[in-house]
Amino acid sequence: MGVVDVRQPLGDDGEQRRERRAWHHDAQALHELAPDLPVLPGPLTEYRQMASFDWKQLRVLLEDPETLRVKMNLWRKLEADPMFAHPKATPSVEEQKRHVAVQLKRFVEINLIPREVHSWGYKNKTKFMMAVNAATASWNKNLSVKFGLGVSLFTNALLSLGTERHLPFYEAVWDNKFLFCLGMTEVGHGSNTKSVRTTATYDPKTQEFIIHTPDFEAAKCWAGNLGKTCTHAMLFAQLYTADSCHGLHAFLVPIRDPETLTPYPGVKVGDIGEKAGLNGIDNGFAMFDHFRIPRENLLNRTGDVTPDGEYESCFQNPEQILGAALENLLAGRVAISQESTHDLCAAVTIAVRYAAVRKQGSPRNSKEELSILEYPLHQWRLFPYVAAACSFKVFMDLFTDQYLEIVEQSYKGAEMKDITSMAAEVHAIVSAMKPLITWTCASALQESREACGGHGYLKSSMLGTMRADHDATVTYEGDNNVLSQQASNWVVRHWSLAKQGNSAALLDASPLGTLNFLLNAEDKLKKRFTGTSKTDVMNAHFVMASYEWLLCWLTKALDNQLQKLKSAGVDRFTARAEVQAFYAKPLALAYGENNVLCYFWEKIQTPGIPSEIKCVLERLLVLYGLWGIQRHFVIFYRGGYATGSQLADLVQEACQTVCNQLKPDIVAIVDAIAHPDAVVKSILGRSDGRIYDHLYDAFMSQQGHMERPAWWREVAAKPQSKL
Amino acid sequence: MGVVDVRQPLGDDGEQRRERRAWHHDAQALHELAPDLPVLPGPLTEYRQMASFDWKQLRVLLEDPETLRVKMNLWRKLEADPMFAHPKATPSVEEQKRHVAVQLKRFVEINLIPREVHSWGYKNKTKFMMAVNAATASWNKNLSVKFGLGVSLFTNALLSLGTERHLPFYEAVWDNKFLFCLGMTEVGHGSNTKSVRTTATYDPKTQEFIIHTPDFEAAKCWAGNLGKTCTHAMLFAQLYTADSCHGLHAFLVPIRDPETLTPYPGVKVGDIGEKAGLNGIDNGFAMFDHFRIPRENLLNRTGDVTPDGEYESCFQNPEQILGAALENLLAGRVAISQESTHDLCAAVTIAVRYAAVRKQGSPRNSKEELSILEYPLHQWRLFPYVAAACSFKVFMDLFTDQYLEIVEQSYKGAEMKDITSMAAEVHAIVSAMKPLITWTCASALQESREACGGHGYLKSSMLGTMRADHDATVTYEGDNNVLSQQASNWVVRHWSLAKQGNSAALLDASPLGTLNFLLNAEDKLKKRFTGTSKTDVMNAHFVMASYEWLLCWLTKALDNQLQKLKSAGVDRFTARAEVQAFYAKPLALAYGENNVLCYFWEKIQTPGIPSEIKCVLERLLVLYGLWGIQRHFVIFYRGGYATGSQLADLVQEACQTVCNQLKPDIVAIVDAIAHPDAVVKSILGRSDGRIYDHLYDAFMSQQGHMERPAWWREVAAKPQSKL
Repeated sequence: MGVVDVRQPLGDDGEQRRERRAWHHDAQALHELAPDLPVLPGPLTEYRQMASFDWKQLRVLLEDPETLRVKMNLWRKLEADPMFAHPKATPSVEEQKRHVAVQLKRFVEINLIPREVHSWGYKNKTKFMMAVNAATASWNKNLSVKFGLGVSLFTNALLSLGTERHLPFYEAVWDNKFLFCLGMTEVGHGSNTKSVRTTATYDPKTQEFIIHTPDFEAAKCWAGNLGKTCTHAMLFAQLYTADSCHGLHAFLVPIRDPETLTPYPGVKVGDIGEKAGLNGIDNGFAMFDHFRIPRENLLNRTGDVTPDGEYESCFQNPEQILGAALENLLAGRVAISQESTHDLCAAVTIAVRYAAVRKQGSPRNSKEELSILEYPLHQWRLFPYVAAACSFKVFMDLFTDQYLEIVEQSYKGAEMKDITSMAAEVHAIVSAMKPLITWTCASALQESREACGGHGYLKSSMLGTMRADHDATVTYEGDNNVLSQQASNWVVRHWSLAKQGNSAALLDASPLGTLNFLLNAEDKLKKRFTGTSKTDVMNAHFVMASYEWLLCWLTKALDNQLQKLKSAGVDRFTARAEVQAFYAKPLALAYGENNVLCYFWEKIQTPGIPSEIKCVLERLLVLYGLWGIQRHFVIFYRGGYATGSQLADLVQEACQTVCNQLKPDIVAIVDAIAHPDAVVKSILGRSDGRIYDHLYDAFMSQQGHMERPAWWREVAAKPQSKL
Repeated sequence: MGVVDVRQPLGDDGEQRRERRAWHHDAQALHELAPDLPVLPGPLTEYRQMASFDWKQLRVLLEDPETLRVKMNLWRKLEADPMFAHPKATPSVEEQKRHVAVQLKRFVEINLIPREVHSWGYKNKTKFMMAVNAATASWNKNLSVKFGLGVSLFTNALLSLGTERHLPFYEAVWDNKFLFCLGMTEVGHGSNTKSVRTTATYDPKTQEFIIHTPDFEAAKCWAGNLGKTCTHAMLFAQLYTADSCHGLHAFLVPIRDPETLTPYPGVKVGDIGEKAGLNGIDNGFAMFDHFRIPRENLLNRTGDVTPDGEYESCFQNPEQILGAALENLLAGRVAISQESTHDLCAAVTIAVRYAAVRKQGSPRNSKEELSILEYPLHQWRLFPYVAAACSFKVFMDLFTDQYLEIVEQSYKGAEMKDITSMAAEVHAIVSAMKPLITWTCASALQESREACGGHGYLKSSMLGTMRADHDATVTYEGDNNVLSQQASNWVVRHWSLAKQGNSAALLDASPLGTLNFLLNAEDKLKKRFTGTSKTDVMNAHFVMASYEWLLCWLTKALDNQLQKLKSAGVDRFTARAEVQAFYAKPLALAYGENNVLCYFWEKIQTPGIPSEIKCVLERLLVLYGLWGIQRHFVIFYRGGYATGSQLADLVQEACQTVCNQLKPDIVAIVDAIAHPDAVVKSILGRSDGRIYDHLYDAFMSQQGHMERPAWWREVAAKPQSKL
């Protein structure tokens, strides 16, 4: 295969893209992206008939049709290949690992990522790979994580941290000869890079690095693929030359013979064992005992060691390094947020369809039982998650585009005067977005499981499996609480500009505009809630303005607290820890929510959206916003924005009303964000809504379900026990 | 064995109990209940040395020592018997079922419930059985559920619903000859008794009942033990005689031949398949095709059918029936709340011990890294759950005693003028308590898993398994949202008495005093928050008084909403549904929290508690209360109790301060509520705190962990792949 450096200049393909975007009005293409739903009348039909809009139109509006097409195509291919079929019963942990490992091999073998993507330039290539990743994650998260760590994230990292001499590794991975793992985390520490204790000491005599693990707490740990299958690690270690430490560097370290998978002597490597989920991935640990690797295996884009042991830093082009670092740190978090948005869509697909079909209770004098979807509490439990799913989908679509554009520009060394501010802002956006989206998805999965009652506890509902697999996301690739702190640190740093009313500096600091809420902050903080009726709060203007007030208040309050502690002589580390629970964390979450609202709002303004769809989108935005506002209620009172019962009364009333307005459309909204049945794989969430038929099939297809168990004699009563 | 009717009169054993209670000051006995912790200095030692009190004293204060002794003894027996050992790796679902089934058989066989308990009278017997159940649940929830459904709950239900003629079934179950399941839930409906559609039609010609399932939606479903192992079902069906329906009755229905476990013809029965947890239990489904059972198999305490087909109601003694019904409905929910309290204790044991040992980050100029327990956010994430664990433990201990006493008195037909009010109040308490405790435990398990970072995701942390198994509790034995509504219905029904200031009637309506907050409600609602410093809110008086105000406001607001809807002509069913999300559910939860606070407060007043322990208990109560108050913050503002920032500022400041005060004691508090290491089974939560040693052992004991996988050839590269 021909490997092309991703950093090659790209032609302006704007024209071409606009053309490609146009086709989605074509009926054939629309059919491909939004295949017809079952026509046989089923329990969902009635709700579908109530919808005020065409779900297919909404589907191609909520997601870039090109991205959607990549996903739909991939799903068709995975569905058609028996190798990717899901086993009926959960196999042993060992068999799960084997199955995913052979799936991964096949995934690369049959070119699910066509080789030509390598020539598309960074942005187009990565966008494509991210679509494939998210779609694969919805099919089988084990597979996507294994692929991401072992192939795609690795090769991306290789291109930005390595140089020409490492390209053979790139090719070998894409040719299924090598498989990598990323070795950062150690047993005693998470991804806190300062605490990494593995060493790589240069020996000029043999021109080798000696990789060494001082003790078990410094053992590399958790790396996916390390447990049983990887041939190499991209290992992070402290680089030493002649007793001087040059900090963390990445090394390509052979772990197992690629032809026999036998670990090399000097590497103590194994699997860390069973987990709460994702058991198809062989997370591993490794300890190195003075293990020697060639000098050339140092990834030397940022620093190198000469054959005779001189360390040389090579920061010729800081912007490129910055872009590379940015991309490496953040790509994984963007991908996780995309996957979580998928999981959130799947969760509400299952819970809403189930709620439409499941009946319970009826008003006195009525014979017909009500669908549980008709209960206001049930709506309030689920519809905000539907609104979140749609909002996140739009946000991730738009933000990913911006993010990739910025990285690409930085790679090209383009003239971007504000690249440093942009990098910092993107980092803050991602640091707020990943916690917000993964936590929202986790609670949606839990609420959906509860909303499906006992049947939601069946494995075949898929909610339990999704919850267990998704759960890892809230602490990996940057713990959510740690990331939140980074986001709030960035926001609060700008309060002084806001206080000075220095709008120009604020705009400079936030090229993407996510700090716009701080413009005229002191004026905004003087605003008071004056609404007197439900309609005063049931609109996007109220939601957006309230969020601006909220963010200004939180930023100012956090700054005040920090200043107060500083004046009292408290050091910065301790001060930040003190304010985290009640100031910094709420600020980070509110900042993330506001970003989602702003991007979603922008999307709704796209010219040409049919009015009935625009109306639905606005309701979703309002519901998502009010849901957030009621979580932050106390701040509005505490900060004097509201007094008395009015705000809380009206917002709650509005929440219930918007839910009720969305009710006739909710099944169609879910149709617009639902993945195909074969992807959702839930007997409760199928598009035909025939839950009882699917339950019947599931019960009847249990292996040997009607026979006595093979072990009957161990538990049966002794003869003559009958009464 | 000799079966003794549980309803025999009991002697007053008050004297005897007081004597038994006294021994816990005896050193030998204390050692049995609170064995010494590891003496080798380990990472937890430092925190233990900071404690202001003796954890052993606290241990026997938080739980009735008798109950604790039953549990400790049982745990020792389970630990000593290899049959109850836990498999290292998760076996197949089928093997999990087999293992638990043979454990169950052995559980009965080796008399873990000694036969003499049957002669102890209802209260003592049930208290003992509940202690055994909770302890077994912490050992293996599959086993306790299987035992509960198949033996203990069944035999209790049999004694209250059946008569003399059914006693042989009781004996057969305790002799391991029969195993039961409870068949209420159907595929299309949960436990809504009105919706049960299975029929039992009497045929006078043969003097049999014909059990019939009209269609798949009416199939019995989810019953534990039904899938593979039960010999009989206690089946709930609509009783018909000559075309007239007499409502729901219970029948003893043979399912499988006890000697061969072969299902009987006419019963289509099988396992419902894999679940999100509790896979050791064979939950099943069953459809009956005109399946005939003898007339005598009707449990005929409440109603009977004569041989020639006359239906006769036998409500000679309504109080006894009431007691029986009460006990049947509620015993399961009480047991679940006890088990959840156990799980909550285990969760915080793991997370707090881990937090004390795990280090991350350090202030500038400090070389020593901090334990993550030192971070205020981490304290705020975990300590309220420790406070909840202690509060729930005390509450469950005291309330269970009351509950059992009331049921026993009602069985004895004692002269209790307020038995009807008591029954209603107990029902409300349980309906608020089960949702509160199970939801709190679910979120504690999630928070604990996140607080343990990646290592919390290891199966050997036990947090994932506990979460998956615990998850069932929030929807089974009465869905939490449905139960909440029942609790709030009961509370709001009494608002009119409060409005009239009719204290006498209120006291009559609430013999257990859980409605005391409504006494002088209108006066209480006039109270305003006047605190100006942290100490004004950091005390039990503020917490208790604020909860009283909160409950009065919520009750009044709910009543107002219902009245408004009624005036607008909305029917009661619809009105209740309308107010559920924003009025009824918060009321039910706050009512549950207030009950916990009141019982805990009463406990703290016990004479003779050492002052240092009293101080710790008060801090725990205050933290639990403030944690609740900040969740309900907006209501205090909305209702005018507070204006401005003071309340929120002070409460948050107080929360952080109490956490900080509890910090030196927190490891010792956890020691006081921790189950033995063999029960918690978590490598992160051991009492020696040597997490890295245990991680090392766990990694190294993975079967074949250092070998290449047996399936290496399927994924290894073809020869000549080396670079």
